[in-house]
Amino acid sequence: MSDLHNKPCILCCAITGSVPTKAANPAVPISISEQVESSLAAVEAGASIIHAHVRNADETPSSDPEKFARLQEELRRHSPDVIIQFSTGGRSGAGQERGGMLPLRPDMASLSVGSNNFPTRVYENPPDLVAWLASEMQKYEVVPEVEAFDLSHILQALRLYDEGKLFGKLYVQFVMGVKNAMPADRAVFDFYVAQMQARAPQAEWCAAGIGPNQLVVNEWAIAAGGHTRA
Amino acid sequence: MSDLHNKPCILCCAITGSVPTKAANPAVPISISEQVESSLAAVEAGASIIHAHVRNADETPSSDPEKFARLQEELRRHSPDVIIQFSTGGRSGAGQERGGMLPLRPDMASLSVGSNNFPTRVYENPPDLVAWLASEMQKYEVVPEVEAFDLSHILQALRLYDEGKLFGKLYVQFVMGVKNAMPADRAVFDFYVAQMQARAPQAEWCAAGIGPNQLVVNEWAIAAGGHTRA
Ligand SMILES: [Zn+2]
Ligand SMILES: [Zn+2]
Ligand SMILES: [Zn+2]
Ligand SMILES: [Zn+2]
Repeated sequence: MSDLHNKPCILCCAITGSVPTKAANPAVPISISEQVESSLAAVEAGASIIHAHVRNADETPSSDPEKFARLQEELRRHSPDVIIQFSTGGRSGAGQERGGMLPLRPDMASLSVGSNNFPTRVYENPPDLVAWLASEMQKYEVVPEVEAFDLSHILQALRLYDEGKLFGKLYVQFVMGVKNAMPADRAVFDFYVAQMQARAPQAEWCAAGIGPNQLVVNEWAIAAGGHTRA
Repeated sequence: MSDLHNKPCILCCAITGSVPTKAANPAVPISISEQVESSLAAVEAGASIIHAHVRNADETPSSDPEKFARLQEELRRHSPDVIIQFSTGGRSGAGQERGGMLPLRPDMASLSVGSNNFPTRVYENPPDLVAWLASEMQKYEVVPEVEAFDLSHILQALRLYDEGKLFGKLYVQFVMGVKNAMPADRAVFDFYVAQMQARAPQAEWCAAGIGPNQLVVNEWAIAAGGHTRA
């Protein structure tokens, strides 16, 4: 266990997300300057990855590459070492729009590799879109963070990695606590970790608990040698 | 283990499916009379559940309640004791069409409780459709066989059952070997079984392996005290 004790834990901070608005929480950063300010505060507090979504002026989600470019430029200028991760998630755009910012060559981008239910709808990631996003990430040398909402997504990430379809080091995020997808369940978490250790001991993984599950899942992840997403 | 040795194993036979045609396999039963003949042969061979899809004359999948009614009537007449299970799967119709035959009160019907990827597309089971299908099954006293294409689907089945939303005894099918969903994986199978035993020891489960995985997964299921789908 000594290697685990000496291993740094990566803190990834999702500053904005695609859903919450200032009506729900006045602290949610919406404009680029608010996002930069939030990101710098997170870096001060120890975050080394900033997971970013961009928004329109009316707070709705956007996938506009122009906005991503401005955020990237500002972040690079104020915090040259932070790892910038853009979201290619499905709430900000449809189809290939979701990867329109990848030519900006962010350090990382989130990548969904399967479909699942969300609280009120289907989170659609059809196989051809997954393949296209992964190939764009290879083309622009962007390291994917695979967002795994279910067990098959983890196995799919391992398969895509073995087939040489994911750029860089394999990095998987277990997402737990989304209604109608995977609950924040300890036995499942332990099985996820065992699968990663058995099948890809060289890979890194982190875990995110949604809403009230956040701190619980972060604690599980830190204690098991993983990384965290807040 | 003695109770396991004395426990009968249920054989469920899916005679037609929604995809294969006579061009691929001349033995696939398409017409109602072919389906009845196939079902009776399966019952002779030991099957106690017939899982049925209906087809149009051109072999494309159908969700026409008239066709299901004729199949049910013929099957009942020739084999009064067989358990008839209708498919509410997503390849035969869209939205509530998928449950249009439930008023016929078949003994059972398949029920998907989550979404996932299939080889070339998203298998869409939005939460409101799942809730509607489950409530129709309650209304018409149809026992669902939950088709679990991923781990979260099993946990979702357990939750729906605990909430009183599934009619009758809980029956879950593990579907393994569908490309882009769950592979036929032994460690995953063992975890599925352990989850069922820990969380719903009174429930029954069966396992289906797609294509070349069929016999392997059937063997796993029989040895572990489950039921089989062929
Ligand atoms: Zn995100
Ligand atoms: Zn992360
Ligand atoms: Zn079927
Ligand atoms: Zn079955």
